[in-house]
Amino acid sequence: MEIKIVKDVLEANNYIAKTINEDLTKRNIMMINIIGSPGAGKTSFILKTIEHLEVKCAVIEGDITSDIDSRKVAAYGIPVVQINTGGSCHLNANMIDAALKVIPLENAIIFVENVGNLVCPASFDIGEDFKVALSSVTEGDDKPYKYPAIFKKAMVTVLNKIDLVRYVDFDRDYFYKGLKTLNPNGITFEVSSVLGDGIREWSEWLENQLMQKYKK
Amino acid sequence: MEIKIVKDVLEANNYIAKTINEDLTKRNIMMINIIGSPGAGKTSFILKTIEHLEVKCAVIEGDITSDIDSRKVAAYGIPVVQINTGGSCHLNANMIDAALKVIPLENAIIFVENVGNLVCPASFDIGEDFKVALSSVTEGDDKPYKYPAIFKKAMVTVLNKIDLVRYVDFDRDYFYKGLKTLNPNGITFEVSSVLGDGIREWSEWLENQLMQKYKK
Repeated sequence: MEIKIVKDVLEANNYIAKTINEDLTKRNIMMINIIGSPGAGKTSFILKTIEHLEVKCAVIEGDITSDIDSRKVAAYGIPVVQINTGGSCHLNANMIDAALKVIPLENAIIFVENVGNLVCPASFDIGEDFKVALSSVTEGDDKPYKYPAIFKKAMVTVLNKIDLVRYVDFDRDYFYKGLKTLNPNGITFEVSSVLGDGIREWSEWLENQLMQKYKK
Repeated sequence: MEIKIVKDVLEANNYIAKTINEDLTKRNIMMINIIGSPGAGKTSFILKTIEHLEVKCAVIEGDITSDIDSRKVAAYGIPVVQINTGGSCHLNANMIDAALKVIPLENAIIFVENVGNLVCPASFDIGEDFKVALSSVTEGDDKPYKYPAIFKKAMVTVLNKIDLVRYVDFDRDYFYKGLKTLNPNGITFEVSSVLGDGIREWSEWLENQLMQKYKK
């Protein structure tokens, strides 16, 4: 029998993440890790997306403290688990492993809302199928240049609060130029999670991803 | 002679921070540690503040990578030092110690723009006189509830982008209720770093703090 020696925290984490993803695949579940700054609009984006989906969904809410977001999700009748990190600035695979034990779903999409932080969550896989970087126009157009790790690793970048773009100084060309340099094959959507703009395109793409995963 | 045994990273950091502050005090310098989410408007806030100040100023820019912000500051003829943390999600006292060596000022205010992150920078003193939590209305009104550490530790909380408050769902009472629970004696300002609203009040308060520090 092979004895695995875990060299460091990150390797241990990513080993657990891999196991989680294998287990989710057996259950026909797709899990999405949503990463963005505090106030980027992660919860509203998840709620608006679920509104448009036919498939079963659940949410895992990651926060330092408080259950503000999970109460919002529960109010829509959506299964939700709150993880309070108690100070830690990102979710890790162990936390997700524990949360998944209380979500007995199959054939579903699980949205994980990571702790509001554009830096640390990028380094920790949690067993997700892919990462979504959520950036809102009110944060400015230079985010890919200043926080490259997450924009490089995220298969999907969503530009949120597009309804506010007329009120702020946001140069789309500059934003996308930075993003494409880091992540030439990344997929992008522009949405307003308040008004609903762009959510249908994103939701249809998402359901298509789920179908592709499970027709294999 | 007392031999100091440094127990952990944070203690070592805070020991260096204390030494930095003592040195700055000898040079009649006040240093301010500005902490906020990515895109909260930290650079614009610093630039608008310096416009209103009579006293000499310098800026230390903390970023994961890129010199976007320090080039903005330099364009105004303000002395600036860029610190690239190379992945680390916060500034620490060692980094500031190195940066201060190339700022040979006396009788001045030094603004430190920390890495955009509402979590990790709260734990690391850098020798500052006080911390400023910068939160913008576009991030939502629940930030003190979800990221309590920084709102508890900051002597000053500045609510930025007040010019956009009419376009977003932001409940001032809820925001300030959360803040006051954590930090009953905290000082607050509301500003628009774009239009300049509230910057004069904050700048006058700041100059007054400097005078009070050095009349002692």
